[in-house]
Amino acid sequence: MSKEDKRKDLGITEKKEENFGEWFSEVIIKSGFADYSPIKGCIYYLPPAIYAWEQTIKYTDELFASIGVENVYLPLFIPERLFEKEADHIEGFQPEVAWIENKDDNSERLAIRPTSETLFSELFSRVVRSYKDLPVKYNQWCSVVRWETSAVKPFLRGREFLWQETHAVYVNEEEAMKDVLKVLDFYVQIAEDLFCIPVFKGRKSEREKFAGAVKTFGIEGIMPDGKSAQLGTTHYLGTGFAKVFEISFLDENNESKLVHQASWGISTRFLGAAIMLHSDNKGVVLPPKLLKHKVVIVPIVFKGKDFVLDKAREIKEMLDDGYLNPILDDRDYSPGWKFNEWELKGIPIRIEVGPRDVKNEQVVAVLRHSGENLTLKWNNLKQEIYQLLDKIKEELFERAKRLQEKFLDEAKTIDEFEKKLKQNKIVKVHFCDNPECEEKVKEKYGVSSRLIVDEKPGKCIFCNKTSKYVAYFGKSY
Amino acid sequence: MSKEDKRKDLGITEKKEENFGEWFSEVIIKSGFADYSPIKGCIYYLPPAIYAWEQTIKYTDELFASIGVENVYLPLFIPERLFEKEADHIEGFQPEVAWIENKDDNSERLAIRPTSETLFSELFSRVVRSYKDLPVKYNQWCSVVRWETSAVKPFLRGREFLWQETHAVYVNEEEAMKDVLKVLDFYVQIAEDLFCIPVFKGRKSEREKFAGAVKTFGIEGIMPDGKSAQLGTTHYLGTGFAKVFEISFLDENNESKLVHQASWGISTRFLGAAIMLHSDNKGVVLPPKLLKHKVVIVPIVFKGKDFVLDKAREIKEMLDDGYLNPILDDRDYSPGWKFNEWELKGIPIRIEVGPRDVKNEQVVAVLRHSGENLTLKWNNLKQEIYQLLDKIKEELFERAKRLQEKFLDEAKTIDEFEKKLKQNKIVKVHFCDNPECEEKVKEKYGVSSRLIVDEKPGKCIFCNKTSKYVAYFGKSY
Repeated sequence: MSKEDKRKDLGITEKKEENFGEWFSEVIIKSGFADYSPIKGCIYYLPPAIYAWEQTIKYTDELFASIGVENVYLPLFIPERLFEKEADHIEGFQPEVAWIENKDDNSERLAIRPTSETLFSELFSRVVRSYKDLPVKYNQWCSVVRWETSAVKPFLRGREFLWQETHAVYVNEEEAMKDVLKVLDFYVQIAEDLFCIPVFKGRKSEREKFAGAVKTFGIEGIMPDGKSAQLGTTHYLGTGFAKVFEISFLDENNESKLVHQASWGISTRFLGAAIMLHSDNKGVVLPPKLLKHKVVIVPIVFKGKDFVLDKAREIKEMLDDGYLNPILDDRDYSPGWKFNEWELKGIPIRIEVGPRDVKNEQVVAVLRHSGENLTLKWNNLKQEIYQLLDKIKEELFERAKRLQEKFLDEAKTIDEFEKKLKQNKIVKVHFCDNPECEEKVKEKYGVSSRLIVDEKPGKCIFCNKTSKYVAYFGKSY
Repeated sequence: MSKEDKRKDLGITEKKEENFGEWFSEVIIKSGFADYSPIKGCIYYLPPAIYAWEQTIKYTDELFASIGVENVYLPLFIPERLFEKEADHIEGFQPEVAWIENKDDNSERLAIRPTSETLFSELFSRVVRSYKDLPVKYNQWCSVVRWETSAVKPFLRGREFLWQETHAVYVNEEEAMKDVLKVLDFYVQIAEDLFCIPVFKGRKSEREKFAGAVKTFGIEGIMPDGKSAQLGTTHYLGTGFAKVFEISFLDENNESKLVHQASWGISTRFLGAAIMLHSDNKGVVLPPKLLKHKVVIVPIVFKGKDFVLDKAREIKEMLDDGYLNPILDDRDYSPGWKFNEWELKGIPIRIEVGPRDVKNEQVVAVLRHSGENLTLKWNNLKQEIYQLLDKIKEELFERAKRLQEKFLDEAKTIDEFEKKLKQNKIVKVHFCDNPECEEKVKEKYGVSSRLIVDEKPGKCIFCNKTSKYVAYFGKSY
């Protein structure tokens, strides 16, 4: 393959503003973040994706540790009998459960975990005896399988995806709800600080809540096509699982009580949303922290100017502190070809060093997300790079915030709602939170409530009955 | 439950020297490292086990990064068609593969990965085009499923276990073999430096090598019952997978060549072996690095001596540096009860602070692994704790080394071999490495070769034919 072929092969051919879905898949695949596998609905997560996911794990584990969450690993399989114990839960998950063929004599059918409330409940029923044992907060990082029939969207929807699921038991509702809301704020922090995705948070409607939950809370971010993406959920499960799994404890008066349960989770969907939101027609753009290599150094070399390459090497060594992981691209390709490749892969800062730069003791830095050019002096270069990384992070968030504001809107009447829905908006309205009312909205407009974000007396714009809530409605991933 | 009941409940009732197998299970379960699950062959990995495993991941990732290994994640499922491509491979794994029931129309049967050579090969066949793309070294941390019918032994044998599998492709055999042997040394380092398990290393016999490999290498450690435990293997796969998966590249002369392939892996078996080797009748003993809490402080409090508790708190704060994670046990139990609990869980250093210690500006430190008592002055306490942790690590390794030496032996004749086998030894002998010869040894003595550890001309003690090798034979996990 000639260099020209390779360049053609590397570039993104679809436009973000014209063919959003195709553009997204192309960015993911051509940048080497993921690849399609021969298994329908499953992708290969390649090194840059796993690097970003490892940063997410580290960041999340630290937040979780601050409230006493400990990591565990429970089996991939869930016996049918356990799975069927909680009626709402099985009803919600049944259609998309994968089962295995293998069975021992007289043993029951095994599901591949779509989520592990039931196994954790089984474990808690044996671990918890006294109020002194509570709370217990166990988290696992694993993959789950949901036999979806809809099309795969890398990182956003698939039959197997990576996630974390925390399951916790408490002495009462108050303690459980404290964590459910605290972790919702952790998730906002992960979205905004790590992924630079501005989000809104709230409670899921009765129709949209998790199968088996009393209350579900979530965070959602707005994508460039105006669709809302659910990025994390936390659930207060009440005593429903405790009842059927007999998770009880002796309280301070030696009376037997049921535990109150909670669970919460985020997935690699976060990564998909961040790529979708920040990237452009040249390829990946991501917050620097999620990328292993923060800097690529491209020497602009001419014959007889070896001192340029020497200086580029020196700069690489100076920046190689275990975090910036600079790449020195001294391959035998043209600078333009190299620029394209590193832009495709999303390296946040490109440093160009030419003969004149060496003379002037400077480099040119080009920022991936904005194209901005800066001249940086050698002295203090590392500190300036770190300041630029902060600036990039802030600008990514601000840009995404402006996009979010463009799509979030509100409506006082059903006409206004219809109009704004047609304009591709996520529309805030008074809403009764009656599942039958929402069902009708879904049938008529093809959208569901995203989150209930406020409590305010009023009239539901759909059924005109007295309403206590304000909720966003709109299209979603 | 009264305190007395709880103490009884906590203690290990079996003796390591009398009922080794039962003792091991009891240590694992009662210390809270794992628990049996309702799924046959699968266990719950509880927080201390996952903490130790996370340290293993961190340690291993750093070693792997030094040779350019990158982490990825591939699907849990392997299509039957891919799995059947390499004949030796499918023959070796077929009996213990789990399959899922779900199928799309016209789609093929899916296995749950028992190992992922086939999927990685499929990926490599699309990623690799030129010699410039090589080598590619991809690793994943995941769980694998092998539908074993033998009894579970927590961490050592089960239907689902956690491991890492690296798959790599190279331009030639030499490059591949360099990594295969280099990683074998990494595994020795992980065994000896992280787990304090002395091991021997070598090549697996033709009969015992991995299904699909040209050569398999391994490391093994000797357990207190004299059985050998395989702790890590590295494989040179030749071009077998490359041929059937068509993984080829254009070399420098633009000629199409097949890649040479390698793979290697370690599992949570390491943790099982370390617990088995180091622990005692009071509970868990492990190298400090594998345990979150290195120190527990037990104040010996009397009425009117609140200053003891104040001092204990002060010491805790002083030691709380993010690595030692000291526990202050100020619960309302007797010191003896607390000692038992922390010994069961394996905290390496117990610090006792009583009124007299406060007066003398000292503490008493008791080492979990040896029972040794030391008096430590307050000034310099943290540094002394770190020195003690080093000492503990060294002593654990030395103790295990002496045990290993007790069981490793050699034999020049078949009579000597039989005698030493009866003495429960792992016996080194001249061996022809003919699978049929080894098959007969297996049938007659119930043991297989562990590893070929040397090349030396001689005569196979079993078949009397000319032999080039020296190998260990003995019982194994």
